[in-house]
Amino acid sequence: MAGIADMAVVELWRGDLPESVHRVHAVVADATGEPVALWGDPGRIIYPRSSCKMVQALPLVLSGADLSSERLALACASHQGTPMHVARVADWLADLGLSEADLLCGAHWPTDRESAHALLRAGARPGPLHNNCSGKHAGFLHLARHLGAGPDYVAPDHPVQRAVRAAFEEATGEPSPGWGIDGCSAPNFATTLRGLARAMAGFAAPGPGREGEARARLVGAMIAHPELVAGEGRACTDLMRAAQGRAAVKTGAEGVFVGILPGRGLGFALKAEDGATRAAEAVTAALLVRLGVLEAADPVAQRLTSGIQHNWRGLPAARLVTRL
Amino acid sequence: MAGIADMAVVELWRGDLPESVHRVHAVVADATGEPVALWGDPGRIIYPRSSCKMVQALPLVLSGADLSSERLALACASHQGTPMHVARVADWLADLGLSEADLLCGAHWPTDRESAHALLRAGARPGPLHNNCSGKHAGFLHLARHLGAGPDYVAPDHPVQRAVRAAFEEATGEPSPGWGIDGCSAPNFATTLRGLARAMAGFAAPGPGREGEARARLVGAMIAHPELVAGEGRACTDLMRAAQGRAAVKTGAEGVFVGILPGRGLGFALKAEDGATRAAEAVTAALLVRLGVLEAADPVAQRLTSGIQHNWRGLPAARLVTRL
Repeated sequence: MAGIADMAVVELWRGDLPESVHRVHAVVADATGEPVALWGDPGRIIYPRSSCKMVQALPLVLSGADLSSERLALACASHQGTPMHVARVADWLADLGLSEADLLCGAHWPTDRESAHALLRAGARPGPLHNNCSGKHAGFLHLARHLGAGPDYVAPDHPVQRAVRAAFEEATGEPSPGWGIDGCSAPNFATTLRGLARAMAGFAAPGPGREGEARARLVGAMIAHPELVAGEGRACTDLMRAAQGRAAVKTGAEGVFVGILPGRGLGFALKAEDGATRAAEAVTAALLVRLGVLEAADPVAQRLTSGIQHNWRGLPAARLVTRL
Repeated sequence: MAGIADMAVVELWRGDLPESVHRVHAVVADATGEPVALWGDPGRIIYPRSSCKMVQALPLVLSGADLSSERLALACASHQGTPMHVARVADWLADLGLSEADLLCGAHWPTDRESAHALLRAGARPGPLHNNCSGKHAGFLHLARHLGAGPDYVAPDHPVQRAVRAAFEEATGEPSPGWGIDGCSAPNFATTLRGLARAMAGFAAPGPGREGEARARLVGAMIAHPELVAGEGRACTDLMRAAQGRAAVKTGAEGVFVGILPGRGLGFALKAEDGATRAAEAVTAALLVRLGVLEAADPVAQRLTSGIQHNWRGLPAARLVTRL
């Protein structure tokens, strides 16, 4: 299967008129890594951003580090900075004899509103532990310790990032055409959308051996701890709970989303051309319905694909329409 | 001038690769109301959202109400809920013998982060006065008082909204093809992008008589009080300050922006197809440069059209590229 197909479309309707329109590239790959369904351009070069954290965590697992399922889930997480997330990452760092000061991800306010408000009411400010990527960075530090490498673990030529790049290129089956600096300061390696879908299919059909076992452990951790991978009310968490073990999904900034369907040996990757999260979430939910993971009537699928948007006075004002 | 042209393009680049791409429709109209430059589809039907607040304020000014320039600017504003904005709207309501409880816009946290944080630290919550549309709603209440009409001033058949619709259709030169409920619960009337550009040209070349005088007063108020129309650090405020009286500009939700160039008799309207604010701001700044209102080297124009995006650790991570 090749070529370029019609893109998936997500519209925001207000009254009886479409107000804004998103177009989304998407590729579903099977266990051989080849596309079996596609929308838009499978050759679109993208930055996976946080959607590829399970790939970035592969060298850590392959290092033989003794890590709980919770910590593996946090390594794959874009968490929302609740006390639950922050405490677990802090514990991990403490076990390494490290602290928040060793994190190079920078600080931002928790994306969980109540957690942010609690900090404000306490007169506190967020630190690197609150950064949604702090679990991934704890994993980088853990791997750096194992490798006996220095503290600047986000430098592209640091042994940690060299290992991540090798794992990424092996998973996508392509040399990466370039890299950019992510929001958390780690290098983010580019690939085609086809390559990212192939990588996800590799997690869905992990195969035998140490590599396959590492992939299966990461997917199992994500599915076992959906609340650690994102948080209450977030699309990743809600979709994984609704999928009841049939899928692991992960968002990335600028409208990226991936899915791993272990029971089916299928993986998918998608990118909203304009970077819109609402469009990526909508097409992810629609794909999970299309692939039989969720019922069309599932409340999470309904909310993300065709949800009513309420205004500041709680009135229904707009709605999403998703077309694959 | 008619037909459909190439759309304006705004890209987000990371590393050496474009990450996300926005496409923007734009129309520049002259004093006759006809398009003199266009990108994309001038017939695209859009909701102007908050970009048309100066049109929504026309019936108020034409009612003969005695209003200061500050209050006219607030009627046209999407303010960021600082104490300065909130106090001025509260005073306006008090002068009408009304209070925050009469506002039907709903409440949201101030978009100015420091103002939101101050509320939180004080254990307070936002009210309708903090809603970015509270000035527009004060204007609606003022007009309702003048008309002797009831308190449900956002109902589409309320005399206030009937007057707004009539003013809107006269300004755009088109019957509105429909309406939707805005974020602040007021009806928002649809038009073509061409129609919205025509309306803005009408404000740029207001002509003689009471109607012309009302338009000129509203534009003068926006230009005199850029800090009331939005707030510190916001695109509308920064662009109007940079334009030094040569343009009034106004944003609307879902990627709409309009411009009024009084000295040139030109108006413009634009809509990012996907609703992205960053794209609408970028093309607005690029248009102001193209039309000679801003120098290409103007810091605000540079920031909005080609600004570097810094990550959570303050590192340059991405940049905008804008092409008209």
